[in-house]
Amino acid sequence: MRDDITLGPGKEFDLVRALEERWGDAAHGIGDDAALIDVPAGHQLVVSADSAVDGVHFRRDWLTPREIGWRVAAAALSDLAAMAADPLAMLVSLSIPDAWLGDILDLADGLADAARATAAHIVGGDLTGARELCIAITVLGAAVNPLRRNGARPGDLLYVTGRFGGPLAAFTAWQGGGRPSPADRDRVAHPVPRMRESRWLAERGAHAAIDVSDGLLSDAAHIAAASHVRLAIALDHLPTLGGLSPDTAARSGDEYELLVASPRDIDTAGFERRFELPLTAIGRVEAGDADVVATLHGARVAPGGGFDHFS
Amino acid sequence: MRDDITLGPGKEFDLVRALEERWGDAAHGIGDDAALIDVPAGHQLVVSADSAVDGVHFRRDWLTPREIGWRVAAAALSDLAAMAADPLAMLVSLSIPDAWLGDILDLADGLADAARATAAHIVGGDLTGARELCIAITVLGAAVNPLRRNGARPGDLLYVTGRFGGPLAAFTAWQGGGRPSPADRDRVAHPVPRMRESRWLAERGAHAAIDVSDGLLSDAAHIAAASHVRLAIALDHLPTLGGLSPDTAARSGDEYELLVASPRDIDTAGFERRFELPLTAIGRVEAGDADVVATLHGARVAPGGGFDHFS
Repeated sequence: MRDDITLGPGKEFDLVRALEERWGDAAHGIGDDAALIDVPAGHQLVVSADSAVDGVHFRRDWLTPREIGWRVAAAALSDLAAMAADPLAMLVSLSIPDAWLGDILDLADGLADAARATAAHIVGGDLTGARELCIAITVLGAAVNPLRRNGARPGDLLYVTGRFGGPLAAFTAWQGGGRPSPADRDRVAHPVPRMRESRWLAERGAHAAIDVSDGLLSDAAHIAAASHVRLAIALDHLPTLGGLSPDTAARSGDEYELLVASPRDIDTAGFERRFELPLTAIGRVEAGDADVVATLHGARVAPGGGFDHFS
Repeated sequence: MRDDITLGPGKEFDLVRALEERWGDAAHGIGDDAALIDVPAGHQLVVSADSAVDGVHFRRDWLTPREIGWRVAAAALSDLAAMAADPLAMLVSLSIPDAWLGDILDLADGLADAARATAAHIVGGDLTGARELCIAITVLGAAVNPLRRNGARPGDLLYVTGRFGGPLAAFTAWQGGGRPSPADRDRVAHPVPRMRESRWLAERGAHAAIDVSDGLLSDAAHIAAASHVRLAIALDHLPTLGGLSPDTAARSGDEYELLVASPRDIDTAGFERRFELPLTAIGRVEAGDADVVATLHGARVAPGGGFDHFS
């Protein structure tokens, strides 16, 4: 499958060569003006872009460069999981300040870890100088029946994968000058795109999904808006980390867990045996104006929360 | 073809909504976790990423925000032209500092201008806060027989589209505190991806190409390295702008003209009538170690030149 192109001279291309060597079989086909990808017959191409900026999405004193690389790639790949798409490829654009040049190959290792874990080969990208590190990732996948945000229907059951709140607990600890617990820190350093889980759920009838990047309640609002439905969510059974209450954990962003809507009961015990991860029923889709009505112990919980880059 | 998804509340999504409104029919399908694209049967997907950073790739006091948007998108689309691919779609990731928020919709107009000019709909992307403006574009196209850098063969003829040197002359004028000529400035403000030209050339037998982004001689070295051939280039007839000599113009980057290799004579007069753009024979591909041997008035011209972000 290797189909790399030999590059001409230049320091920029020396860095491309160093990245190719470091990436090994996690990359292929790098070095032409554009990369060539075969999309399986009968599949739609599924494509998403995600970027992360030093100091906004990560901090060098909180995570290792390799963890930062994993995290940024995993966040992008999580969008393919949300669509139940099979990963095909990844493009990596790095805007690199001088202060990061010494760590960029370690960061690249983290990108390759994520590429290998999901079989999304790195096929191209771009390198430029900059005053701050900006990592822009494009992921490409293929799907026959992609899960979309607009597929939720009144009567559907709502489920979430995983345990919520770890990232919020970790960020709170760091911002207070402390150290997060290993379990909470791991949710920031090593989020796992729920690829296999998503396909399993789609095969069992789930017909709408979103990955939780802004916060469970904020992202639920996107499904409500896209599907023109009301989401009634009871947070009482939401599994949490970091000792957070469910209503706080439901505002934790960067979770990369899935919120899915299914017209049928899903075998949560079977899911948990298969993936060693909780799958929890948290509510129901109802007819009505686009809205999220969340409750805890029967009392209404305020909507929204989570992170907004422009608030 | 419109298939947009309604988004939930939040200032970040207000900006997405403002962009969607501004883009109109230049965008569609925005708002899901990922965009869905149909790749025509029998075609390979062609994909490339390109990014531009304020102060590195453009300066706000040299170009309008709309020109910056056009330029960044055109540079990315030029990679599809280099592969003779039909554009399908574009993803736009913007990392936006506060100082740019007031101009971002004007910059978005320039992105839409380029999308409309090439039928590459904007289908998604990402918005984040940042301390400096970083624009990361991914372009997607489809091709049955893509032109690659590694297709040049001994005996091929080499051709270039267009006139060279305008960007270098413009940057030199700006950096000296002056103002470039309108013709030179236009080559920076409004480079045109050579989409139709590239397909025309491919249909007439061209079997390798690259777009000139670093400089004609530097980019020729990529073809030489990828195809394992020597490129003999006589610069005497290279059309130039800005009063530059051909050996200087051959080091001007950001040209987004094409260098193509063809086993057959190409009807340059027919090309010029069709596209109102010169197509010039500048040399020949020879067997030998990967190298570029450029001459002017029979004397050897030093290789390389052009811009390297990490030199």
